[in-house]
Amino acid sequence: MNDISLMTMNEPIFDVAQLAHVELLTPDLEGTLHFFKDLLGVQETERRAQSVYLRGYEEQYHHSLKVTAAPRAGLGHVAWRARSPQALERRVAAIEATGLGRGWIDGDVGHGRAYRFDTPEGHPMELLWDVDYVTASAGNETPLRNRPQKRPRSGVPVRRIDHLNLLAANAGAVRDFMVDILGFRERERVVSDDDGSVVASFLSVTNLSHDIAIVPEPTEMRGRLHHVCFHYISVQHLFDVAELAKEGGIAIEHGPARHGIGGASFLYMLEPGGNRIELMGDPGYMIFDPTWRTVAGSDASPTAGRWAPRGCRRARSS
Amino acid sequence: MNDISLMTMNEPIFDVAQLAHVELLTPDLEGTLHFFKDLLGVQETERRAQSVYLRGYEEQYHHSLKVTAAPRAGLGHVAWRARSPQALERRVAAIEATGLGRGWIDGDVGHGRAYRFDTPEGHPMELLWDVDYVTASAGNETPLRNRPQKRPRSGVPVRRIDHLNLLAANAGAVRDFMVDILGFRERERVVSDDDGSVVASFLSVTNLSHDIAIVPEPTEMRGRLHHVCFHYISVQHLFDVAELAKEGGIAIEHGPARHGIGGASFLYMLEPGGNRIELMGDPGYMIFDPTWRTVAGSDASPTAGRWAPRGCRRARSS
Amino acid sequence: MNDISLMTMNEPIFDVAQLAHVELLTPDLEGTLHFFKDLLGVQETERRAQSVYLRGYEEQYHHSLKVTAAPRAGLGHVAWRARSPQALERRVAAIEATGLGRGWIDGDVGHGRAYRFDTPEGHPMELLWDVDYVTASAGNETPLRNRPQKRPRSGVPVRRIDHLNLLAANAGAVRDFMVDILGFRERERVVSDDDGSVVASFLSVTNLSHDIAIVPEPTEMRGRLHHVCFHYISVQHLFDVAELAKEGGIAIEHGPARHGIGGASFLYMLEPGGNRIELMGDPGYMIFDPTWRTVAGSDASPTAGRWAPRGCRRARSS
Amino acid sequence: MNDISLMTMNEPIFDVAQLAHVELLTPDLEGTLHFFKDLLGVQETERRAQSVYLRGYEEQYHHSLKVTAAPRAGLGHVAWRARSPQALERRVAAIEATGLGRGWIDGDVGHGRAYRFDTPEGHPMELLWDVDYVTASAGNETPLRNRPQKRPRSGVPVRRIDHLNLLAANAGAVRDFMVDILGFRERERVVSDDDGSVVASFLSVTNLSHDIAIVPEPTEMRGRLHHVCFHYISVQHLFDVAELAKEGGIAIEHGPARHGIGGASFLYMLEPGGNRIELMGDPGYMIFDPTWRTVAGSDASPTAGRWAPRGCRRARSS
Repeated sequence: MNDISLMTMNEPIFDVAQLAHVELLTPDLEGTLHFFKDLLGVQETERRAQSVYLRGYEEQYHHSLKVTAAPRAGLGHVAWRARSPQALERRVAAIEATGLGRGWIDGDVGHGRAYRFDTPEGHPMELLWDVDYVTASAGNETPLRNRPQKRPRSGVPVRRIDHLNLLAANAGAVRDFMVDILGFRERERVVSDDDGSVVASFLSVTNLSHDIAIVPEPTEMRGRLHHVCFHYISVQHLFDVAELAKEGGIAIEHGPARHGIGGASFLYMLEPGGNRIELMGDPGYMIFDPTWRTVAGSDASPTAGRWAPRGCRRARSS
Repeated sequence: MNDISLMTMNEPIFDVAQLAHVELLTPDLEGTLHFFKDLLGVQETERRAQSVYLRGYEEQYHHSLKVTAAPRAGLGHVAWRARSPQALERRVAAIEATGLGRGWIDGDVGHGRAYRFDTPEGHPMELLWDVDYVTASAGNETPLRNRPQKRPRSGVPVRRIDHLNLLAANAGAVRDFMVDILGFRERERVVSDDDGSVVASFLSVTNLSHDIAIVPEPTEMRGRLHHVCFHYISVQHLFDVAELAKEGGIAIEHGPARHGIGGASFLYMLEPGGNRIELMGDPGYMIFDPTWRTVAGSDASPTAGRWAPRGCRRARSS
Repeated sequence: MNDISLMTMNEPIFDVAQLAHVELLTPDLEGTLHFFKDLLGVQETERRAQSVYLRGYEEQYHHSLKVTAAPRAGLGHVAWRARSPQALERRVAAIEATGLGRGWIDGDVGHGRAYRFDTPEGHPMELLWDVDYVTASAGNETPLRNRPQKRPRSGVPVRRIDHLNLLAANAGAVRDFMVDILGFRERERVVSDDDGSVVASFLSVTNLSHDIAIVPEPTEMRGRLHHVCFHYISVQHLFDVAELAKEGGIAIEHGPARHGIGGASFLYMLEPGGNRIELMGDPGYMIFDPTWRTVAGSDASPTAGRWAPRGCRRARSS
Repeated sequence: MNDISLMTMNEPIFDVAQLAHVELLTPDLEGTLHFFKDLLGVQETERRAQSVYLRGYEEQYHHSLKVTAAPRAGLGHVAWRARSPQALERRVAAIEATGLGRGWIDGDVGHGRAYRFDTPEGHPMELLWDVDYVTASAGNETPLRNRPQKRPRSGVPVRRIDHLNLLAANAGAVRDFMVDILGFRERERVVSDDDGSVVASFLSVTNLSHDIAIVPEPTEMRGRLHHVCFHYISVQHLFDVAELAKEGGIAIEHGPARHGIGGASFLYMLEPGGNRIELMGDPGYMIFDPTWRTVAGSDASPTAGRWAPRGCRRARSS
């Protein structure tokens, strides 16, 4: 009854809770691990064959980042956590109806069974419910009961994964899939001045301005990652890690600067394996309004272009 | 059907979306306005009789703070925004069933009809759906499409309201009301070593660690406010505003320091009217886990007591 | 005598104590004053005819910045304060011996008699001893005895002037004059890979890495200013003022970023009159070593090019 | 001769250039080294017998800190560097005339011959000229030519030593010695309301507000250290290192807060050996005025007591 009313009254879908983890492929596993562990203070939970499982020091799950040795850098997959077992079932049913489903897997180190699917442009994704939690390794126990371990003493440690950004030739199609099938809300959008088509879209299921962004794919390739972003709480952290990067031979691609879209301070680096990593120095603005109206800019004048310091453009331009 | 399953499977209530606004009473209206407008860069939207309506520069609603002249400082009321019209109806029905409802009002400047109720200890609250949005006043227009106006040039401007903190003799009863009737999730809790009763509780309906906190009421009074908190994005802002406060004769009660519970950097000040105002320098940790287990401390060793710099205790101890 | 003995004993000259003030010319006096007063919180001490005298809130002298209406933006003059009356006489004698002296003036608002001279490329300078001190205007008194007034509540207030940067076709000649005649120490230098000539030079008489910088003049013009720099204590201040600038229509030329030379975080803006203004977010490294060896880079690989985030180059390149 | 002329011309003495290093005694050598190396990122240059020589990553000398195993925590000695060989001779002559001289030593690891002396209350000091410079160890080379090595990846690394603070029963006598014999300038002073005697004094030979502070000795002991201070460039660094300290079982004594005297943000910790260590988050105000008038407060209302956040008092009170 109430559910029917929910549907008929068109209430939002709350079935996807959060970004659970991202798998990055790297042709330089040791270089990539050096970057994440020594510069960003990311914690290693476990190793299996060609994959290493990592997490920020405030994260409670087994991992938020999986790094896998591969011939080329790129996206392994993206995993989202459902809000409940039945929420998982509901979303899987909706995905299957689109024909983009690829079926269940038994799970992976750190989580239980997961449903695999692709975005309309072939970005590999998973939806899951069961997750494993970590406990502090010896010497990392903390009196702080709200974090699983103490702050690392290595590098400039990131706290948690924040969001990811995907490249898409048809950003609108991927945006529609995330909104209609998974229940994401579109927070900002950039449209073409020529035909009004969606050039870029920023979406979330949380109070963050985006858990996922979709920006233009300039090549013939499909299903590619633009970047994964991790979270700091100060622009000073961006300057500190930039210093480690420059003296450590890590390429700083762009920043520190401030985004117009999302409003967060940021830094883009290329980790040794070749993947673009964004670091945020503050959360930007957060969205609590349940009726937030999507902020729309045009590619001739995206919000960012008007506001941010020179050279501070949307990720795709950097 | 699905709804039954929702109930039987015990899915969370998503009917309350956010803290909409807080009304503060002040015996020194001009002093209180000087504090908020000149030191915190809070924007005045409108004045009516003995009340002034204010908001942070990133806030889109008509107001997040209402200041009303009164013989004594204190809490006027707290307003929560529902996630949808039907969500509002569902919660009102639940509140009425408790006998704590006080009925509908037509609304106030900036929002439509609202349902009034009390917590078990008499804190006046409202639940509402319709809200008015602001547009930039002349000279405050911004090219940034994701904020309603430009950053103010007065004081050290806060971005938005963050949370409030209430005093309660029976924190457990107020906690149960917020959880069972309004759908808040308890994020952290402090229990008594003597009898295991709830001493303090930190709850949210958002990804913040708390939208509302309940801490012990040491007096015979009931329904009192401990503090209202506004949001910055840097500890530097806390030091900057502390400088304005000290040189401006505003009492700094405590901080800058870092909370154990919630993990945010903070500063407590007493505005000229006598209300305690907290300022946060970062969001602390955020909660995305849909199955977050309440962090429990004891009053002999709350998390904060173990972690924060000396003298960094929960507000009530300062 | 004493001077001779200093020479024979090969001890450094300590006769110049500090940068006293800079005069900027502006074709848009009101725009320039809006920039300094409303965005940078600079304090106005006095107005005379076409000139306005200004200072940072921590500065004790009558002014560190003089802004004068003129047909074109540019440098009015640079004033240095001697360390003692006899130090002033010694330096004037040394300057006169070079033929670059232009004689004494009775003084200006805020200071007594001053000796005028030019650098080898015609940058107008003054050397003076007597200065006037300010006291807080009504309402600006502070309990802090080590500053002349309270922190302003307007904009993101700078604390004090830091250094200036001049353009020179023959940087080596200007450098030699500052070192040999005025007693500056060269802290960093950039030389040409072609002929080893001095391309840029950074000099100070204080513990700062530079009170004055000399960078290449790409045009046929002579005696020009590159920029004047003011001091903050946090990179957050750079981001905050960048926000005011962008929303206020002020051009951000470069940054926030970090210099290789000097090591300070910085932001370059163009004030409405057209003068380039630098803001520093920290002091960079300071020099206490009395035998500091000039750090030498080549124009093919200045220190900055190796270190700072992409796009973070020496001022002249920005 | 030159010295006499300086006196007769009543010009300041410039013979002492800087604080060269401090020797700390510790009953827990490994604990003290863990604190400095793992939490503060201090670099070990060399070990000899019971002593370890350390330096901040921006420091060019062999060491700025010497840690020596001893039965009790405390001050080993303080070393100042003269501005020239003849400046060293001049100061030694002046010290010998006071009867507080203890004679020359051949030197120590990292520096040449040094002249030993005591303050009027027996604080052991040295004055020296010859110092050894470090070069980057393998893997620590940096493209930055103005620092000797890259930024460490351990802990929250301090840049350099900043100042020290001594306890004295007769602060005025120690102050007079530093001013009259060594040429320090008194920047701030706290006097007794009862008899006008000097309670505390803050002095420098640099542009810093103090290279040395003298505060009251509440016990019968003499010649004791209050604290040694190291330098950061952001209050965020103070919060970050406070987090490492609290989770690492290091006692935070006071702060983060801001001093009234000197105006710097700070944090006090007790290292495992028992010595008090201060960390600064910014330089506070700097002094460039050659005729700076000593800022005088009374012990009933020192500047700090009026300004800094509650609980932010002069070091001695913390």
